[in-house]
Amino acid sequence: MSVYNFSILDHQMMSIALKLAKKGQYTTSPNPNVGCVIADDNGVILGQGWHHKAGTPHAEVHALAQAGTLSSGATAYVTLEPCSHFGRTPPCADALIQAGVKRVVAAMVDPNPTVSGNGLKRLAEHGISVSHGLMREQAQQLNRGFIKRMTLGLPWVTVKLAASLDGKTALANGTSQWITSPAARTDVQIQRAKSCAILSGSGTVLADNPSLNVRYAELGEAKKSINESELRQPLRVILDGKNQLTDNLKMFDLEGQTLVLNRLHNPVIRDSVEQIQVASVGNKLDLNAMLIALAKKQLNEVWVEAGGMLAGALVQQNLVDELILYQAPKLIGDKGQNLFVMDELTQMQQAKMLQWSSVRMVGDDIKMVAQFK
Amino acid sequence: MSVYNFSILDHQMMSIALKLAKKGQYTTSPNPNVGCVIADDNGVILGQGWHHKAGTPHAEVHALAQAGTLSSGATAYVTLEPCSHFGRTPPCADALIQAGVKRVVAAMVDPNPTVSGNGLKRLAEHGISVSHGLMREQAQQLNRGFIKRMTLGLPWVTVKLAASLDGKTALANGTSQWITSPAARTDVQIQRAKSCAILSGSGTVLADNPSLNVRYAELGEAKKSINESELRQPLRVILDGKNQLTDNLKMFDLEGQTLVLNRLHNPVIRDSVEQIQVASVGNKLDLNAMLIALAKKQLNEVWVEAGGMLAGALVQQNLVDELILYQAPKLIGDKGQNLFVMDELTQMQQAKMLQWSSVRMVGDDIKMVAQFK
Repeated sequence: MSVYNFSILDHQMMSIALKLAKKGQYTTSPNPNVGCVIADDNGVILGQGWHHKAGTPHAEVHALAQAGTLSSGATAYVTLEPCSHFGRTPPCADALIQAGVKRVVAAMVDPNPTVSGNGLKRLAEHGISVSHGLMREQAQQLNRGFIKRMTLGLPWVTVKLAASLDGKTALANGTSQWITSPAARTDVQIQRAKSCAILSGSGTVLADNPSLNVRYAELGEAKKSINESELRQPLRVILDGKNQLTDNLKMFDLEGQTLVLNRLHNPVIRDSVEQIQVASVGNKLDLNAMLIALAKKQLNEVWVEAGGMLAGALVQQNLVDELILYQAPKLIGDKGQNLFVMDELTQMQQAKMLQWSSVRMVGDDIKMVAQFK
Repeated sequence: MSVYNFSILDHQMMSIALKLAKKGQYTTSPNPNVGCVIADDNGVILGQGWHHKAGTPHAEVHALAQAGTLSSGATAYVTLEPCSHFGRTPPCADALIQAGVKRVVAAMVDPNPTVSGNGLKRLAEHGISVSHGLMREQAQQLNRGFIKRMTLGLPWVTVKLAASLDGKTALANGTSQWITSPAARTDVQIQRAKSCAILSGSGTVLADNPSLNVRYAELGEAKKSINESELRQPLRVILDGKNQLTDNLKMFDLEGQTLVLNRLHNPVIRDSVEQIQVASVGNKLDLNAMLIALAKKQLNEVWVEAGGMLAGALVQQNLVDELILYQAPKLIGDKGQNLFVMDELTQMQQAKMLQWSSVRMVGDDIKMVAQFK
């Protein structure tokens, strides 16, 4: 991989492009978040744009339109390599060439290994100076789900759990309302809004009959960053290896779609609810196959809100990328329900290891974010 | 209670006195930590001192000695009301009177309700201007164990636990070495060094044969604040309601004392180990009576390092003031051992509520400090 020298000005411009890209985090999937800044050599911004939604113009097109004829001889900063193929919109590389930009800086190349580099190559062939890798980590963080799906054919999986300080998600009798504070529940709404899908198991769904949706009124401060009209309901995905689901679930009547994954088609569920059959291992659904199926449905980020059984199985099979745990300052005691149902460990080295991403207060609770090693 | 106006200078001086007091935190018990600053009206410090150890001079005596004749007409800032009685040393109130100070500011009055206010009264009777309450909370925090013992006849109880992110203290087979990082274990050494006693149960002691001592070499940065020669070994207190302890425990051979609390004298334990019989409730030791016995032994702060049984029982009986939980970024699963063995809850409101004091990283682990409501 080539190493480029980037100036302070380059960093400033890319930093703005990354902020622009982030504006699409509630709406762009299955497409990636992309931001673009077009600037002259003095750092005067001539045009800026971000990708809003699949099927609508890419970030570069918005920025070029804003800059108009000023694009000629300018530098384009894009958080992702410009596309070189005709998708639902024409290739951005061609648009940049036609506009006459002299230089293109990409934070990262296209993560899809079969097309990666083609956009930059096409630009270079037209005499444009190209470079990439500026603020790559931030750009990768922004599209980690898209990247994982493109490179591994799997979605990014985040398991969310709420527990007492002693690691209990519910009382023995199942009561879990409410372990955490309203602020933590608002935070969950925001995380749901950013996700492509919410995954749960039939046990949890039958016990709690949850909505598993995004409620605009409960988005708190995030309402400033998202229009109610653009609010996207994540796909609700319910694993039901034993066809236990009935047709009278609250979520079936709510806005948004529900997808049921099972071994055999369940005839009692209404036709408007999609069902996909997944391979099984023993008498359980094959969780890896399940995630492959979700990636095939172009889901980049899967947000898991499940009980200890499903959460534990996903962790044990190393299928989870990230854990988000809200811990409330209360104690329930050993009779409460556990976070992760897993096989017994006999050596400490068998424990699943994580790495902290962040630890902060959300209302009265601690929000811990950690990634699996 | 009177309300006094304190100047910025008063706050600055008391703040120094509090810092001085803190230097005694590894050595003064059963006495409180006390600091004293003697200053003129311009804030020039004429003398300062802190109480080192029971039986040695009080903070005021050190400060007066340093200030010498300059004490006359000066102000004395003390973090605790000067004593007015003859204990192992003569009353500090008299020393201040003889030195001719014109004003005494105390952060707090003596917590012992039977003598509280007498020192200040004696000073006022000799024409000295007295006031108190300046930075009271900080002063109370410094001597919370001493205050609790003086006012309630009970020691301050801190339960320390180390767990995985899913709240497990050990594997099912008992393996707990090591859940947390070396940095967390150093932190535990420092906390032990500040404590008057380390409390554990016979189950834990028989299973792990722990040292439950302070090892100077493992005190890390705290070595700067404490001389090896002054290192105090906390009293090791082992609850043994069923006389299960044998005489071949490692801790019996270590420096420092061990105290065994049981229902009946255990004849197999060597005579050099003190035993105290405590009342029982059913077939278990009365934990409240146990703590009263420890307070009678002038123990201000009890640091509990026990298994889930004893920790849970103490929490359930509302006998714990503070919880310190070190949480490591790893998952053990539901088969691991629980933090608190408690009766089953049937309603969420029955959960024991805490209030955060601090949450910070210690090495790879999170150190959570919370006080029970």
